[in-house]
Amino acid sequence: MREQITSVHNQHVKNWRKLQTHKGRNKFGQYLLDGWHLVQEASHSNQKLIDLIGTADELDQHDDIVSLFENVYEVSPEIIKSITDTNTPQGIVAVVELPNIHVLPADHLKGAWLFLDRVQDPGNVGTMVRTADAAGFTGVVASNQTADFFNPKVVRSMQGSQFHLELVAGDLKKWIADFKSSGLPVYGTQLNPAAKNFRDVTPGANFALIMGNEGQGMAADLLSQTTDNLYIPMRGNAESLNVAVSAGILMFQLNQGN
Amino acid sequence: MREQITSVHNQHVKNWRKLQTHKGRNKFGQYLLDGWHLVQEASHSNQKLIDLIGTADELDQHDDIVSLFENVYEVSPEIIKSITDTNTPQGIVAVVELPNIHVLPADHLKGAWLFLDRVQDPGNVGTMVRTADAAGFTGVVASNQTADFFNPKVVRSMQGSQFHLELVAGDLKKWIADFKSSGLPVYGTQLNPAAKNFRDVTPGANFALIMGNEGQGMAADLLSQTTDNLYIPMRGNAESLNVAVSAGILMFQLNQGN
Repeated sequence: MREQITSVHNQHVKNWRKLQTHKGRNKFGQYLLDGWHLVQEASHSNQKLIDLIGTADELDQHDDIVSLFENVYEVSPEIIKSITDTNTPQGIVAVVELPNIHVLPADHLKGAWLFLDRVQDPGNVGTMVRTADAAGFTGVVASNQTADFFNPKVVRSMQGSQFHLELVAGDLKKWIADFKSSGLPVYGTQLNPAAKNFRDVTPGANFALIMGNEGQGMAADLLSQTTDNLYIPMRGNAESLNVAVSAGILMFQLNQGN
Repeated sequence: MREQITSVHNQHVKNWRKLQTHKGRNKFGQYLLDGWHLVQEASHSNQKLIDLIGTADELDQHDDIVSLFENVYEVSPEIIKSITDTNTPQGIVAVVELPNIHVLPADHLKGAWLFLDRVQDPGNVGTMVRTADAAGFTGVVASNQTADFFNPKVVRSMQGSQFHLELVAGDLKKWIADFKSSGLPVYGTQLNPAAKNFRDVTPGANFALIMGNEGQGMAADLLSQTTDNLYIPMRGNAESLNVAVSAGILMFQLNQGN
């Protein structure tokens, strides 16, 4: 059933717009996917598909995907623009069910895990999730004060990786303690040449890597709980690396052969 | 000499604002540095310092740096805001001489070089320059259609690395030919599992690495000229990596011990 909406003041449109905020996403238990690539990824996942919103042109060209949605809304480009935060939206948006990230995955002590300690920039969080996916990680755990996984900017940077790995909100102290009591190593990261050279570590298949806040790095009370804290030796005059770049270098070094 | 400016319509202010554009930077031969960190980096470099623009508060707190500038302008926060593209500027901006990136550095066939083939996102370009600096690279060569090194967004992401390594605008075909005729390897990058695994390459001290456009990758006519084209094996379901993350993984792999 395809319904036509022409006004940006329509109640559906108002509700979709609210999904740009953390409060709105939690209220409705939904989040937005912007563009065909993400909508297609969602249609192959087991995420519940709720609404498909598109311009007539876009909807007409993708019957296969349109037919997967119960609620299909034909709208103007202006309405699309009003519900996304993209400058040049493709003209297609899906509303899907917000996963419950507060559930502890059954296999949470298996595989490679990335822990994010108060990483604030949505682009960094999304890029790290995408990189963790490419590096074969099992999941990503976000601390309190880390940018929300389902913030539109994070969703854009993840490029669909939320459908490939576990995303969890968790207390990192508890996660570190759980890993350590199971005999699994937890690697912190520190901008400190006295820390361990990351090239000197060869973990097994099961471990955790922690990345910290952009400005302040990892919290001291987490650094003191890890198995080892790693450092990427810098040879130029740069004072630091971007956190998502560091995470990429470390994830591809630590998770090579398992 | 400290001059006070109160109007955003002042001619100085209008000229500074033009430095946000490529055309304005080339017309005046100047570019902008936003914030104390970059201003300090510039004051330690041999870049010619032209104007220092700050709020009374900021200027009063940094006599040492203020004294390095011949022209110092005390302005309102509104004027600062009108000449930068930052949401929350620190209240200090410097105008410095635009380096001539069209000159071939004397030592251009020595060390590790990063070539950028039409990388469009300013944040990606800036982050790659910053990472190249940290990885001990000698310089970065930008092709035509790569984001301008002195675009304010690139400058923000470089975090001062432009003062530590060579930045050059060049014809990559010519650079590749020069490297190869000197017996130095040039590594392209390709999203193609049939390309060479990046972990199987151990270059010497002198080589070039090429990163391509975000959407399209490297141009085919460059890929065919390289010594080898590298691939980062991906183990998850992600289809690709962010170009700046890939560049970081490759640069820290290729330039380890020399």
